[in-house]
Amino acid sequence: MVPPAKKFINNPNDVVIEFIEGLVETYPGLQYLDGLPEVKVILRSDVSAENYDKVAVISGGGSGHEPAQAGYVGEGMLTAAVCGDVFASPPVDSILAGIRAVTGPKGCLLVVTNYTGDRLNFGLAAEKAKTEGFKVETVIVGDDCAVPPPRGIAGRRGLAGTILVHKVAGAAAAAGLSLAEVAAEAQRASEMVGTMGVALSVCALPGQVTSDRLGPEKMELGLGVHGEPGAAVVDIQPVDVVVSHVLQQILSPETNYVPITRGNSVVLMVNGLGGTPLMELMIAAGKAVPKLQLEFGLAVDRVYTGSFMSSLDMAGFSISIMKADQSILERLDAPTKAPSWPVGTEGSRPPAKIPVPLPPFQSTKNKESPSRPQALSQQGRLLEAAIETAATVVINLKDSLNEWDGKVGDGDCGSTMCRGATAILEDMRNYYPLNDAAETVSEIGSSIRRVMGGTSGIIYSLLCKAAYAELKANGQSEITPKHWSETLKSSISAVSKYGGASAGYRTMLDALIPASKVLEEKLNAGADPISAFVQSAEAATAGAESTIQMPAQAGRSSYVSAEILASIPDPGAMAAAAWYSAAARAVKELSQGL
Amino acid sequence: MVPPAKKFINNPNDVVIEFIEGLVETYPGLQYLDGLPEVKVILRSDVSAENYDKVAVISGGGSGHEPAQAGYVGEGMLTAAVCGDVFASPPVDSILAGIRAVTGPKGCLLVVTNYTGDRLNFGLAAEKAKTEGFKVETVIVGDDCAVPPPRGIAGRRGLAGTILVHKVAGAAAAAGLSLAEVAAEAQRASEMVGTMGVALSVCALPGQVTSDRLGPEKMELGLGVHGEPGAAVVDIQPVDVVVSHVLQQILSPETNYVPITRGNSVVLMVNGLGGTPLMELMIAAGKAVPKLQLEFGLAVDRVYTGSFMSSLDMAGFSISIMKADQSILERLDAPTKAPSWPVGTEGSRPPAKIPVPLPPFQSTKNKESPSRPQALSQQGRLLEAAIETAATVVINLKDSLNEWDGKVGDGDCGSTMCRGATAILEDMRNYYPLNDAAETVSEIGSSIRRVMGGTSGIIYSLLCKAAYAELKANGQSEITPKHWSETLKSSISAVSKYGGASAGYRTMLDALIPASKVLEEKLNAGADPISAFVQSAEAATAGAESTIQMPAQAGRSSYVSAEILASIPDPGAMAAAAWYSAAARAVKELSQGL
Repeated sequence: MVPPAKKFINNPNDVVIEFIEGLVETYPGLQYLDGLPEVKVILRSDVSAENYDKVAVISGGGSGHEPAQAGYVGEGMLTAAVCGDVFASPPVDSILAGIRAVTGPKGCLLVVTNYTGDRLNFGLAAEKAKTEGFKVETVIVGDDCAVPPPRGIAGRRGLAGTILVHKVAGAAAAAGLSLAEVAAEAQRASEMVGTMGVALSVCALPGQVTSDRLGPEKMELGLGVHGEPGAAVVDIQPVDVVVSHVLQQILSPETNYVPITRGNSVVLMVNGLGGTPLMELMIAAGKAVPKLQLEFGLAVDRVYTGSFMSSLDMAGFSISIMKADQSILERLDAPTKAPSWPVGTEGSRPPAKIPVPLPPFQSTKNKESPSRPQALSQQGRLLEAAIETAATVVINLKDSLNEWDGKVGDGDCGSTMCRGATAILEDMRNYYPLNDAAETVSEIGSSIRRVMGGTSGIIYSLLCKAAYAELKANGQSEITPKHWSETLKSSISAVSKYGGASAGYRTMLDALIPASKVLEEKLNAGADPISAFVQSAEAATAGAESTIQMPAQAGRSSYVSAEILASIPDPGAMAAAAWYSAAARAVKELSQGL
Repeated sequence: MVPPAKKFINNPNDVVIEFIEGLVETYPGLQYLDGLPEVKVILRSDVSAENYDKVAVISGGGSGHEPAQAGYVGEGMLTAAVCGDVFASPPVDSILAGIRAVTGPKGCLLVVTNYTGDRLNFGLAAEKAKTEGFKVETVIVGDDCAVPPPRGIAGRRGLAGTILVHKVAGAAAAAGLSLAEVAAEAQRASEMVGTMGVALSVCALPGQVTSDRLGPEKMELGLGVHGEPGAAVVDIQPVDVVVSHVLQQILSPETNYVPITRGNSVVLMVNGLGGTPLMELMIAAGKAVPKLQLEFGLAVDRVYTGSFMSSLDMAGFSISIMKADQSILERLDAPTKAPSWPVGTEGSRPPAKIPVPLPPFQSTKNKESPSRPQALSQQGRLLEAAIETAATVVINLKDSLNEWDGKVGDGDCGSTMCRGATAILEDMRNYYPLNDAAETVSEIGSSIRRVMGGTSGIIYSLLCKAAYAELKANGQSEITPKHWSETLKSSISAVSKYGGASAGYRTMLDALIPASKVLEEKLNAGADPISAFVQSAEAATAGAESTIQMPAQAGRSSYVSAEILASIPDPGAMAAAAWYSAAARAVKELSQGL
């Protein structure tokens, strides 16, 4: 037996009731009538019929279209929403309870989607309410443009355009208008809007088996919000083409569904049907706007993109176009507390893009291209020797690093490090300003960034950038041993902070942290700087070799078995120990010769 | 070859760029830096770095999580969002461009999700920005509670709890706090929140083949927002059970992921992962709140339900719990213009449900149970005869109606009508107040509503309710022939309005509309009321028979072939003509005898 569609529900018969319970937990401005399971009415918690001095605006219909209609209840939009079972019109008594709960002396407007069940149930409730003394008007919305007009009334379903009618009606009511005026504005809005839907899948009802009638490469045009078959099944196409087709259908001068002609202003709604991610809706909106402007000669005054009236989990969207004038825009822009009406959509449209900013002046002023000095200072010569030796050692270590990394990672540690070291050697000869240690360290970072990809490239760039910031902060051109020590510490701290590793995580830091500690200690104890550097290098090597006993905590090695890890040191740590020790050796040798 | 997953996109490589284009079309308060495709930065259109007098709050990360992070850009929340490619960290230069574009003298806070790529790229950008003179602080959010703590830093991914940290940071910045203060509040918030996700499906990347590793009856617990495998695959369970499991995991005293204990206040976020309809999210929220209160002894101060940080089209949700105090609530409640931050969630919680209202007094006061009068007036006797004859004719017509309906509908027209007529006969004998025509018509409607289902039941109820309203409006107990005529017209108008049919639609109205016209004409021409009634009945019969030539426009018959329709009259019209004619005949016969 085929199992029912997977859903996050309990008993399929309780989905609407449990939806309502979650809704009122989420929005303290909403309440429901205590008449479950028969009466399922969401209403503003700040309105009661006796003292309500505005026209109440009430809508409703089958559930499964969330947030419609319950999410549009709030000051400035709906006063109450009457929820039927999934895809079923609410019963007359439930609608009548909603009318009684929120309708004051000014009466109520029922905004009803054009389905036979909704029309009749809301209609009978309206007639009953009238006999109880309520003033009631009804506006029926049928905005569907998918079927050719001669199909008759059955064809024009009420779709997402209904939400725009809710907003116009709710804002008119909030402005204090009379029932006749609110009804007239809603009626006019309903005649201004056309909608068409497309889908990649049909929806699955709670507790029922999914029957996707569409193949893996098909889409359906013009289907209804209940999964009714669409006007056509076609091969899936780029959304650009789909949007063009939908716009042409809505704005077709032959069907004349909406009274929109070139030069008019419109608002656009791109509505997700429940299973479509926002990214795809935004892509459709981004394509629809220039098409409306350029191909149809329309001004697009507002764009609403989101899931406003869904069809359970259907992967699809609908586009609604409403003719806009100042009065409609004013209603759409009016404030509302309805939780699901989109915010941030109103107002004038500044340029959509602005230039990428340049780096601030203070950093660019020094940016004459760096160049190798004519003559090296003593420090410059030490720096050159350290870099040259360190880079050469890394290049020579390529195969060993690759071999180790092949066992605990993706096997390219040696190649990646070698690429960086080679670039450093070449760039140093060409243009490193070796007499300026800070700038030289910065250039090393740039060389690395240029040629080393992946995590190691960015970690070494970060190390250099943090070192540069520390060296620069001091402001002196001659760097003291103590300052070098602080620089190392500060760089390690940046790598640890952003990379997330610390001592014992089986990374390059297991070489550098011991080195930094020993260097600091020795210098603080008054040791000769050269021997402090050499001793710290020994600590780096010891630290790197100790990684063989460490479990992996970060990076790819964390997925490798403990047995394999216990036979191999971390290649990143070994590389760091190697270049650090090489630099120390070079500085020692050159110092002795000086 | 398996085709790629169906999506509404164009070139899969352009999805992020085209998302951004749609986003800025939708929200005029947002802009982007003109550096596509490399630089993908969304920023507030009302902020420029030079004159920005608040701390800028910047976030970002891989795309595919919409609305995160771009949808949270706006006054009171993020100042800018830096978008990477789908599920890929943004490059350093793009982040740096974002920092330069919005950071003023007070500096900027980077809120970064705990993924190695994001940490390193944001980290390097931060270090670079510092060297350019910007004040920069970074807070890293890792709220994932799915994996046991010893897994190390790699385990705690940044999930939907990050959105709550954005809000706290953004509100603190909007309040004018210093960079250190904003960073401290964000850091504290990040330590207060825990999140865990569950899914029914994994997501499909644009242009790639869907590979749902889950079977039709399985769900995955604790998976990441990029479709990384979860901690466990289990049989699908009611959402009630799933919610319990997730809450226990987040609030586990063993892992101690979040510092929440009994008696604390918390906020709850139920976050959809892109393919989950709002109905299911609300159901989960509705279950989570009482569990938190009763099982964990926590006060739930705020509930946020929606799709805040998605994973493309993944069917799943995550739950985040944040420890709340007055200072955090103040930040969460502070106003923001960020379009995707939920509205209507703040403030105190009135009772969630209120009693179903009773009918208003003026209609109940007449509602002593109706009873058959001791003696019938002349009008009462006519009414009784008309009802009795009409109902009897309908009962006798049962088989013919069923036969006709079997060819053009679902074959139950006769049975349904017979059920209504039988109830009317019985109820009339028991309690119809026959001397009051209006109330009698109302009771006929009630009898019909009680026993007749489907569209025909509600249409006849509507007919009776509208007739009642019209008869009642007059206020006189004796109904004139002219008033009966107006009542018929008004009832037809209600049925037409709510049912959507008019003349020629092949419905019962094709009997009643001609009858109403003839009745009105004859009365206006001064004819004898009895013969006017009889002549109008002849028009009803002729109208019903003419439906044989009509195409169907509404209801189920609209799907039947023209050939079949051309051989059968509309059973609803035939039934209406039959009872109308029977009533006329009865009134004529009784009047002659009087």
